[in-house]
Amino acid sequence: MLTLYISPGACAMASHSALEEAGADYATEVIDLRSGQQRTPGYLAINPAGATPALKTDKGVITQNAAILTFVAETFPDAGLAPLDDPFEMARFNGFNGFLGSSLHPALGKVLFSRPPLDGDAKDEAVQFALGKLDLAEQHLVEGPWVFGDRWTLADDYLMVFERWARQTGLLDKARYPKLNAHLDGVQARPAVVRMLKAEGLEPVTA
Amino acid sequence: MLTLYISPGACAMASHSALEEAGADYATEVIDLRSGQQRTPGYLAINPAGATPALKTDKGVITQNAAILTFVAETFPDAGLAPLDDPFEMARFNGFNGFLGSSLHPALGKVLFSRPPLDGDAKDEAVQFALGKLDLAEQHLVEGPWVFGDRWTLADDYLMVFERWARQTGLLDKARYPKLNAHLDGVQARPAVVRMLKAEGLEPVTA
Repeated sequence: MLTLYISPGACAMASHSALEEAGADYATEVIDLRSGQQRTPGYLAINPAGATPALKTDKGVITQNAAILTFVAETFPDAGLAPLDDPFEMARFNGFNGFLGSSLHPALGKVLFSRPPLDGDAKDEAVQFALGKLDLAEQHLVEGPWVFGDRWTLADDYLMVFERWARQTGLLDKARYPKLNAHLDGVQARPAVVRMLKAEGLEPVTA
Repeated sequence: MLTLYISPGACAMASHSALEEAGADYATEVIDLRSGQQRTPGYLAINPAGATPALKTDKGVITQNAAILTFVAETFPDAGLAPLDDPFEMARFNGFNGFLGSSLHPALGKVLFSRPPLDGDAKDEAVQFALGKLDLAEQHLVEGPWVFGDRWTLADDYLMVFERWARQTGLLDKARYPKLNAHLDGVQARPAVVRMLKAEGLEPVTA
């Protein structure tokens, strides 16, 4: 049995989508990041890093979206979630997910989630830095229509998380980011993503 | 033919060690981060993110240490670099590498590489944040003697990068971090790591 620990609207949406895309039999448990539930002893016993997502399996707990996505793809090979048959293409998949987790996520997270909220020069600087990461995705990393051209993978659902955040905060300008805007609309129309959003009590973010 | 783009002492040491551990036939090219060579058109054509490492293969370029480590492990399966035969253990391997890339690296990087350098409260705050990540590794993530107990993997060489940085800046207190100190000494004694350090013009960082 698989149990995924999520916080609605947070980056665990990527792992949540993956389980939906896989058609997996799983449960979710909500960890409320705003009230600090990720730092309670009960949750720290599951993930000592105090972060979501965490995926509890019969063998133990897996953390980090990139690791969970690859695990889900390998556990449900017939679902076609990642290019499992090609180590080079898998490395590109893992590399893109690494960019999301180590680069785009913290850049946008600083704009959205700094406490106290940033203002003045600090906010401007954080916004410009995040826009630079979105530029990189738009101009170089996302082939279109999906991240890896005509072949959809779980990397697309992971990218959606940050496109949603960017659109919600007015950073996903349509003229500057045509590819990312079309990509977000495409991912949010996927049946598995529609189910994930509904389960988290969310709506598609529209332009 | 494999070509790895590195910057001596920077996080590409992890991928460099991996190629040495694998016994791979490869070349290195140095990209000088301090002079901004990662932002020259020549290098941006290889890695538009303007970061090291990047691994050029016959099929194309792979970026992000975590992706390169898995790729090297899969390309050289006889070298025993990762638990390739077990998707759950691979997920733990990928999850730990994800922690390094998305959490420990930026936390220590902020202390070491902020320009202008941090001082006052901002520096204290960054140091405490980085120590918290090291605490997490010491107390929860690293089983000892290696990250995954008795079985060495490439995750150990990757962790070494940040243990070196921490020791170089006086953050790797012996009493607070006995496991990480012993781990660093153990990794730096590996023949492949000795060769990597020598090739980058570096010495082991001693306590």
